Amino acid sequence: MKFIAEIDVMPLKEILDPQGKAVKLGLGNLGIQSVEDVRVGRHIQLHLEAADEASAKSIVEEACKQLLVNRIVESYTYYLAEFVLSN
Amino acid sequence: MKFIAEIDVMPLKEILDPQGKAVKLGLGNLGIQSVEDVRVGRHIQLHLEAADEASAKSIVEEACKQLLVNRIVESYTYYLAEFVLSN
Repeated sequence: MKFIAEIDVMPLKEILDPQGKAVKLGLGNLGIQSVEDVRVGRHIQLHLEAADEASAKSIVEEACKQLLVNRIVESYTYYLAEFVLSN
Repeated sequence: MKFIAEIDVMPLKEILDPQGKAVKLGLGNLGIQSVEDVRVGRHIQLHLEAADEASAKSIVEEACKQLLVNRIVESYTYYLAEFVLSN
């Protein structure tokens, strides 16, 4: 079975987010004042092959914990769905 | 009204994604071979104040087009929701 995982990796709430601050400032300079808060993270899309949803999930968790996410300063959320190719 | 926009900015399908390639390689080196494709982009969270959903949407569009997205090499998707603080 083929799966797709859409992962968001974001700086923890307690952590300063200089990129988000810079974007907020930039938007203000463009005249967009109504944006009150900005946080910037990464979005990662994985296509994977797995026997079932449980093993797909464990692959995604492994990938996040071992490579994609620095859990000292970041948190992650994702959704995982079966990727269906209709013929 | 307060709104929250969750924006994903991704490299266009036609564009090479060296970061995605590097992640795929890294996962392979860690023994995670079942990931077939990786794409890496940005995730941006905006909190904003607007009179209604239509004007919130136009603020998000403006922010994407003027600052957040390089539309020559990237595309963006987002969802926009009212942010309700219950008392």
